[in-house]
Amino acid sequence: MDVRYINPFIEGTINVLKTMAFIASKPGKPYIKKDPTATGDITGIIGLAGDKNGSLSITFTFPCIKAVLEKMLGEVHDELNADVHDAVGELTNMICGDARKKLEAQNINLTAGIPTIITGENHTITHVTKSAIVALPFTTDFGNFSLEFAFID
Amino acid sequence: MDVRYINPFIEGTINVLKTMAFIASKPGKPYIKKDPTATGDITGIIGLAGDKNGSLSITFTFPCIKAVLEKMLGEVHDELNADVHDAVGELTNMICGDARKKLEAQNINLTAGIPTIITGENHTITHVTKSAIVALPFTTDFGNFSLEFAFID
Repeated sequence: MDVRYINPFIEGTINVLKTMAFIASKPGKPYIKKDPTATGDITGIIGLAGDKNGSLSITFTFPCIKAVLEKMLGEVHDELNADVHDAVGELTNMICGDARKKLEAQNINLTAGIPTIITGENHTITHVTKSAIVALPFTTDFGNFSLEFAFID
Repeated sequence: MDVRYINPFIEGTINVLKTMAFIASKPGKPYIKKDPTATGDITGIIGLAGDKNGSLSITFTFPCIKAVLEKMLGEVHDELNADVHDAVGELTNMICGDARKKLEAQNINLTAGIPTIITGENHTITHVTKSAIVALPFTTDFGNFSLEFAFID
């Protein structure tokens, strides 16, 4: 695992949640993921290509994404409807974009695909690579979310 | 929707399934997808960047992927274990790679991220774009699968 990737993703995530939703995200200890079960209810996935090929996913618990949308858009959603899908897509794009900008400063240039949103009870997400899958857990006052990324070495 | 994309994905899919698993895939009529529910049990997703940014997903029913693995690897799997995840990742990579080669011949150059695999009962997949999401249904003697792709205009 290349540790140069970790901080840009942590900082990008904190920055986007703070700027867009005025929510403070506290990063937990990064770890190498073994279990494919997602730790939340809705996941945004985005593919990365360029200097490295990889993928990024962000999984929110429902209480957490509900709070984010209330604070970001002033909208109350009691189910994972199309508006919530779109908002998770937008957040995935923004977090990915913020991290990519920070990676560019380290001469790592990446372009991103378009986000795909997954829902489903106990859905599992597996990044298909022989390299390490890095998980970054975050806590907020409204519930947890986590970011994962993997690159081909 | 840019129709130039449709045939490379159809041909790439048929070619990979035939070459790798000796399975004939019959393409159904392409359509624009409205409902986000996946029509299968396991999905491979890959992000695309380059001349266009997009995403590609392939969803297999369990009987279909089970037959593919039996014919491709000589392995019988009765559940969606890690080996099945890896094989769906490999198929997603190969189908995407074959389609990309055919798109290059039309001067559309794309690079791909790494595949992400999703499982979960009634999981939903939403490609986040205002553009059309194209669904390509396929039938085989062993069950159905479908490919979806979307690009930013």
